Amino acid sequence: MGVIGRYWAAVEGRAWDDLAALLAEDVVYELPQTRERVTGRDAYVRFNREYPGDWHLTVDRVHEDAAGGASWATFTVGGETMPAVTFFRFGAGGSVTHVTEFWPEPYDPPPGREHLVERY
Amino acid sequence: MGVIGRYWAAVEGRAWDDLAALLAEDVVYELPQTRERVTGRDAYVRFNREYPGDWHLTVDRVHEDAAGGASWATFTVGGETMPAVTFFRFGAGGSVTHVTEFWPEPYDPPPGREHLVERY
Repeated sequence: MGVIGRYWAAVEGRAWDDLAALLAEDVVYELPQTRERVTGRDAYVRFNREYPGDWHLTVDRVHEDAAGGASWATFTVGGETMPAVTFFRFGAGGSVTHVTEFWPEPYDPPPGREHLVERY
Repeated sequence: MGVIGRYWAAVEGRAWDDLAALLAEDVVYELPQTRERVTGRDAYVRFNREYPGDWHLTVDRVHEDAAGGASWATFTVGGETMPAVTFFRFGAGGSVTHVTEFWPEPYDPPPGREHLVERY
C-alpha cells in the first residue's frame, strides 16, 4: 500500500499515531474553498481527531508517484454522503508535507447543454 | 508529457482533433455534483467546444499511472478563477475511457475549529 492508502487507513481507523508517523513535522493542510490552513503535525492530527460526527470513509481512487498524489474518497456522516478530493505532496523519505483538500458540493447544472448531457 | 498533460494542452489550445485522438470512442464524462453524464467521443468533444465563455486554464498538478490519473487545474473566465479537479481512467493503448470532474465552489468554514486554523 502506498503513502496515500496508509494515510486514509490511519484516518478511518482513528490510528492517530500511525497518521502522525506519515506526516512531516511542518505539514501544511489547506482547504482552498474556505481558505483555511492548518500548520504542523500536532495541529493537523488534532484537526482530524476533533472532527465532529461519526464519519467514515472509503477510498475510491488513488494515483501516486514519488512527488505526491491524489485521492478521491467518499465520506459518510449519518445518512449523508460526500466526496473528498485530496492532493498530497511528499518530502524527503516520503513524508507528507502538503495536503490540499476539496469538498465539492452539489449544484444545479447550467442551462444550454441539455442536448449533450443526461442526468444520472 | 503524459496523457493528462496532452489532454489539457488540447483543451486549452482548442485543438479538438488532438483531444479526440486521446479519447476512447465510448468515453464517459461525469460530473458528480450535478449528476450529468456525456457519453461518446463526439458528444464530449462538442461539450468542450461549445463550452461558453473565453475560458483559459493552467494545470497545477498531475499524477498519472498506467491505469489513469488525476489533475488539479485552474480555470479563468473573465475575472473569475475556479479550480477543476479531474480523475481519468485509461483503457487499452492509453486512451481516456472515463473522465470524472469536480468543480469545488467556495463555502463558509464551519465553526468550532478556529483554534487550529488560520484563514488565507
